[in-house]
This record gives sequence, C-alpha cells and structure tokens, in this order.
Amino acid sequence: MASNASATIVAAPERSRQRHLDGDAPSPAYNFVSFTPIVATLNPQLALLQPYPFERLRSLFAGVAPPPTLRPINLSIGEPKHPTPQLVLDALASGARGLANYPTTAGAPALREAIAGWLARRHDLAALDPATQVLPVLGSREALFAFAQTVIDGSRAGATVVVPNPFYQIYEGAALLAGATAYCVNSLVENDYAPRWDLVPESVWARTQLLYVCSPDNPTGRVMTLDDWRRVFELADRHGFVVAADECYSEIYFDETRPPLGSLGAARALGRDGYPRLVSFGSLSKRSNAPGLRSGFVAGDAALIKAFLLYRTYHGSAMSPAVAAASVAAWSDEAHVRANRAAYARKFATLAPRVAALCPLKPPQAAFYLWARVPGDDATFARRLYAEQALTVLPGSYLGRESAGINPGRGHVRIALVAEQDECAEAIDRLVRFARTA
Amino acid sequence: MASNASATIVAAPERSRQRHLDGDAPSPAYNFVSFTPIVATLNPQLALLQPYPFERLRSLFAGVAPPPTLRPINLSIGEPKHPTPQLVLDALASGARGLANYPTTAGAPALREAIAGWLARRHDLAALDPATQVLPVLGSREALFAFAQTVIDGSRAGATVVVPNPFYQIYEGAALLAGATAYCVNSLVENDYAPRWDLVPESVWARTQLLYVCSPDNPTGRVMTLDDWRRVFELADRHGFVVAADECYSEIYFDETRPPLGSLGAARALGRDGYPRLVSFGSLSKRSNAPGLRSGFVAGDAALIKAFLLYRTYHGSAMSPAVAAASVAAWSDEAHVRANRAAYARKFATLAPRVAALCPLKPPQAAFYLWARVPGDDATFARRLYAEQALTVLPGSYLGRESAGINPGRGHVRIALVAEQDECAEAIDRLVRFARTA
Repeated sequence: MASNASATIVAAPERSRQRHLDGDAPSPAYNFVSFTPIVATLNPQLALLQPYPFERLRSLFAGVAPPPTLRPINLSIGEPKHPTPQLVLDALASGARGLANYPTTAGAPALREAIAGWLARRHDLAALDPATQVLPVLGSREALFAFAQTVIDGSRAGATVVVPNPFYQIYEGAALLAGATAYCVNSLVENDYAPRWDLVPESVWARTQLLYVCSPDNPTGRVMTLDDWRRVFELADRHGFVVAADECYSEIYFDETRPPLGSLGAARALGRDGYPRLVSFGSLSKRSNAPGLRSGFVAGDAALIKAFLLYRTYHGSAMSPAVAAASVAAWSDEAHVRANRAAYARKFATLAPRVAALCPLKPPQAAFYLWARVPGDDATFARRLYAEQALTVLPGSYLGRESAGINPGRGHVRIALVAEQDECAEAIDRLVRFARTA
Repeated sequence: MASNASATIVAAPERSRQRHLDGDAPSPAYNFVSFTPIVATLNPQLALLQPYPFERLRSLFAGVAPPPTLRPINLSIGEPKHPTPQLVLDALASGARGLANYPTTAGAPALREAIAGWLARRHDLAALDPATQVLPVLGSREALFAFAQTVIDGSRAGATVVVPNPFYQIYEGAALLAGATAYCVNSLVENDYAPRWDLVPESVWARTQLLYVCSPDNPTGRVMTLDDWRRVFELADRHGFVVAADECYSEIYFDETRPPLGSLGAARALGRDGYPRLVSFGSLSKRSNAPGLRSGFVAGDAALIKAFLLYRTYHGSAMSPAVAAASVAAWSDEAHVRANRAAYARKFATLAPRVAALCPLKPPQAAFYLWARVPGDDATFARRLYAEQALTVLPGSYLGRESAGINPGRGHVRIALVAEQDECAEAIDRLVRFARTA
C-alpha cells in the first residue's frame, strides 16, 4: 500500500509536527503524492519547536467572520508600515552593478565602516574596529538564530539558554535547534516588566551558555537601565556565558533628546572595553522602514564575532552588494530616522492615552507596541475583538511560556501601532466601541 | 594579568582554530583588546572545520613575488565574470518598492511559480507544485548547508554524510556542524571521475543519513548518467538516506542541443513521481552571471521541502522582494542564458585543446572548469606558475581529502575559465610558456 510521505518521514508525533510546519508562511494546500515509504530521519530537534504566534492566531480566528462592513485592520504584527526612504531605494538600484561578484561573508568594508561609525556616534563609543568588532547580517532574525548555533555546545549536559518571558520566539527555536533548552524568566507587571534574573537558581546559571536580552523590549517596550546591564554583565562574568542583546527596536523612541541606552554604551560606561562576552544585534528593518531589505549587524566582542564569521562562511548568508549599498546609505543618514520617530511619537502621544483609559498599560519607553492588560482571557478577548470589530491584536499569552506556574503574557494583548496615523486612530476607535459593548 | 581573548575563549587547540577563522573573508589585522579572561564555550564542532582552499592558497603564495611586469590573472576561483544581464538589474531596481514589507520564508508566490515553470520546461517534467515542491533560497551555499542541519540527526551513533571526493567544501562543513562525519568517495581519472559508490562498505551506507552529489561536477565537469542516478536512488531507498543534488552548474554546457541530465529529470525518467528522498539545488549565480544576487532554489520531495521550510523560518534567510523580482525576471528568460553558454563554448573550444596538449585532461561535459593533470606535486606546480607567470590556478589536492590512502585531487589543478575570452587566452599563453621552461 502506498504510504503518505508525511506520515512516514516523521519520527516525532505527527500531530505535534504538523501544526508547526508552515511557520510564518501562508498555509499552502500540501498535496502529497504517494510514493515508497520513507524511513529517512529528520533532525529530531525540529519536533520540539513550538507553533508560531501567528499560526496560533490563524487557528484562533478559524471560522470567525468579522462584520463585512468593516475593513479589517491588523495591529498584531510588528512590521513597520511607514514608507521606505527614497535614498535607500536609490542606493539599492545603483548598487545593482555589484551583482556580478560573489560577496564575501565578512561583508563590504564600506558597510562595516558605516555600521561602526553609526554605532560610535549613536552610543558615544570610542571607535569600533570595523574589521573585528562589526559584521553585517541579513536582518537580526537570521543572526540571532545563527549566533546560538555558533556559541552553544549542545553536547554539554543541561545546555541552557536563558530568555526573558514573554519573548521573540526565535530565541527559543535557536536554543532548541542548537541542542539546548530555553529557561524562561518572567517579566511581570508588578516588576515594571523587568525580567527577574534574581529569581533564577544558581544551578541554572551554572549551566547557562547564552542569555538573550531584548532592549527596547518586544513586547513590553521596557529599556534596560545601566543597573540592569551591570547585573547582566556580572552574571555573565561569574558564570561564563555569552550575552546576545537584541536591540532591533533601538531607534524607535519618543523623545529625541533621550535615546535608549544600548548594550555597547552600557558596556563602555561600565569600563568594559572590548565588550567582553557581549554581542549586540541591530537592524535597518524598523529604523529605516526597510524590512524587505534584510539588513542588520552584529557588533561587540571581537573573539565572538570572529567565531561567528567562521560559522557564517558555511551558513552562507552573504549580503548582496546591492543590499550592502542600500544599507550604507541608510546607516549614513539620520534625517529619515528622525522623521520616522516623529511619526511614531505623534501616534503614541494621541493614541496610547486612549488605550490606557480602557486597558491598563505602562507606556512604552521605546519600540512600537502597546502592551495592554485586558479583562479575562487574552485569546478570548482578541477573538471577540476580531469578530465584532475586524480588528486584530495579538494575545499576549502567545508570546510567553508557562514558567514558575505563570504565563506572564496572559491577560495582555500586544498592539503594534505600525500603520499610518489614520488607520491606527480608526483601530483605537473600534477598540473603544468594543470596550463599551463588552 | 590581562589575557588574550582568542586564547581563552577557545576550547580547541588554538593553532588549529586560528588558521580557519577568516574563512573566505580578506584577512583583517585582528587587534585583540585585552579584557577579563573568557571561559565561555563555543560550539566545539567549529574546531573540526578544515581551512578553505583559498586560505591554503594564500599561505602557499605567501612571500612569493610574481614578475612585476605581468598583470596577475586569477583562474582559481569559480566566480562567473561575464556581465549580469540588464534585465536582471532592471528588475532588481523596480522591485525595490517591496522593501517596506517583511518577506515570508516560503518566498513570493510569483518566484515559486517562475522556478517551478522553469524546472518543468528545462527537465521536461510534469508540472511541479510551486506550493510544496519548490522553495527559493539565498544561493545554493546557504541552502546546501541549512539542508544538512534540517535532515541530519546528529544524536544517532555514527551519523554519516557521504560526499564525492574532490568536492565543494560546504558539504563537509555542513556535515560536521550537524554533528555528522563526512565519508569521502574518490572520483579517480581511471574511472572517468565517477565517484566509486560501489566501494563504499555496507556498514557505512547503513549509517548514512545524507548523500551529496554534484552534477555537473565541480571540479571534474562530469555529468551523472541515468544509470548513475538509478544506482544512487537504489542506495537511498535501500538505506533510507536523503540525496542532496548540487546542480548549480547545470546551465553551463557546450552543446545547445544536449543539456545535461538533471536529478529531477532522472527521477521522472525512472518513474519516481514525487521525487522521493531527493532535493535538487539550483542557482542563478552561474546561469545568469549574478553571484551577487544570492538567489537559488531547492526543489523535489515535498515532505523534505516542508521540513526544510520549518527549519528556515528560524534560520531566517528570507529573500528580499527586490531580489525576488530580479530572480523572477532571470528564471523567465533563456536568451541571456544561451548567450552566456555561447561565450563559454567559444572559450572551451579554443582553449581546452591547448591546455590538453600540455596537461592531460578529460574535457568537461559541463561547468566551467578544466581539471588538468600536472607533473609532480600540484601545490608546487601552482606556486611556481604563480611565481613565474603571475597566473593563479587551484591545486587539486586542496579540493580533496585523503581517503583509502589517496587524495584524488593530487596531481591535478583546477582552471576556471571564467574570465572573458582575451584574459583566458592570455592565461593559457602563460601556461604554455611555463610548460616550455618547466
């Protein structure tokens, strides 16, 4: 009898794998042809991956028909919606002549210099060495993932990656696929959404190889203080782990005179020349409204960057010279970044108080999310909001994991104020109407 | 005492790691700042990686000063040098408006359809399903690497990846970083450079999880026959392993009427509908002279593609919409590919016989290399050729590994006829002069 390929190739339980397979992709109608049963293995770590939040959202909304009179508005996804600046588009087009050569994994020297220069200006650093302390990457996602593969020794017993909770799901997948487990540290409202590193047992720190932090944080909008960084660096020094600082939201803030403290600036302020054990991840996606460019950087500890470069020569994600040219233009200009911030500042100044009047929230210090508390179950809230107002927000519990008996995302929703002002305002009008009738 | 970061972060012997770290990058002057000694781990598999051929070439040529009157010519690297067609450049520029959105990992439907359509036309296939049997990737290198991470279960005892020998080094690094070992199967001149799969012990096949094949082959230029494919598929069926067919050179051949047989076409001819256990890797780098575009595909077994897509949602190498637009244009046009082939055909028709008169070689069936036998040690030959004629070719032994007591690359050099006709002709003139004086 011909056997279903999907059923025979899979070592782990089919149900668990099946629901994860589409990832962030649209769900195609997979038509399995029948053929000789496969007994080949797959990497069994794939079976450990959790479904993505947006996959769970699709399931949650299955069969729900919002009012046909309302145009659907989606504030669930952290995708910038402001236009990409013309100078980036122009640089991409003029950089196309570089397509006839293989790019090096280390990246174009001009781009490494542009990134190093920008970081030094932005964080008031002594000069970063573009040759050893900076590396271009294809957006922060691939880099956050590949970096874990570079530093983690999955053969050591109890290999652990510590992550804040709630968190960007890539941290967990990177840990699992590197052969480690993710230990989730809750960020609770009663602690102003600071992760409680102090509650992590010494025995966990002792086997920790990597710590992800996110500042400004997705989804809470919290920015780590100098004291937070001192604590994290002390832990890293004491236990010998590496700190991966996801700072992809660093340029979205609301007061031009007070840019968020960054990890490299904190390290410098604390006398940690050379950024030992620290690698910072940055991106043009939010800063320059260019998520389709797939361009970011890692910067910090030269020894870690060196090992990462070695990994990346196999991993193979070298940057197209056209993308590199566009990236140089983007990192070398601040006018478009200020204009972008001004647009976010307007939205948050007018809309955050209206949301706060309905759903208690701590105003974000940076990034483009409202992390609002809602009555009852957050998934039920999101489902009803969609059903009644054609408005999509993300249930907070989908961004968290049960840890110490608590999923700290529960009772929250994440509202991404990424659309233009009018659409965001219309969305909040609907939220107000929904709250009145709820 | 302040300690050198590089010395303290490294678990494996420093010497062995040090020489590998730069990968394909230019060698920057790494200036280590001194800081608190690091005791953090790194992935120990990094220490197993071999130096790249081009790194070994740099060492080989260190201190050698070629005649200053001769302009250096480099035929060691397999980088296309013909110009990128204008239609690709134009499509990239006009695709830039897509930068304002995150691309999905599954890729733009238009690109998946363009690839599926091209494959069906090229290999005379029944229609491929763009939703399930095709996936865009950022060039074949990252895909060849990431695919091994997807399918290999490194926790199984003796996890093995079988590779031809000599071979593209990424196969070996992909195996090692997935926790497997590479078993090298020699391709010897007395067997017309066909890998001797029949000499692989049953005990090795029994633990094999993945087989890489390369057709048209780098460096030998050999194209696998239908009988070769039948043998490989039988082995895969019997032992339950997966076949990764690297076909990035498939569009570089010398007779318009006889395109090389491809893996998907062979599978179809052998009645293997659905391409069980097979994934083919293709690229625009050579076909469309666009190595800087970083665009390729995987195609084949839907169950494997599905697992690969899941891995890639974390791995994170989504394609920029601008690159996708340029790729659609490239896959949809054959005129520029025929013109490109004609240029290679002219070079090989005029130059290969001149090389063959000096160094015995089997004319390649496809791809753009001459795999020529040279007297004595191939590295010594390459070093003297550079010293006397400022001409760089790649020692064949750098592309092989010692297996069954033989490095099958030994006594060969790889000559990439990638430059324009005049430069290649000048290079062969120098080879002739060198041979006369040697």
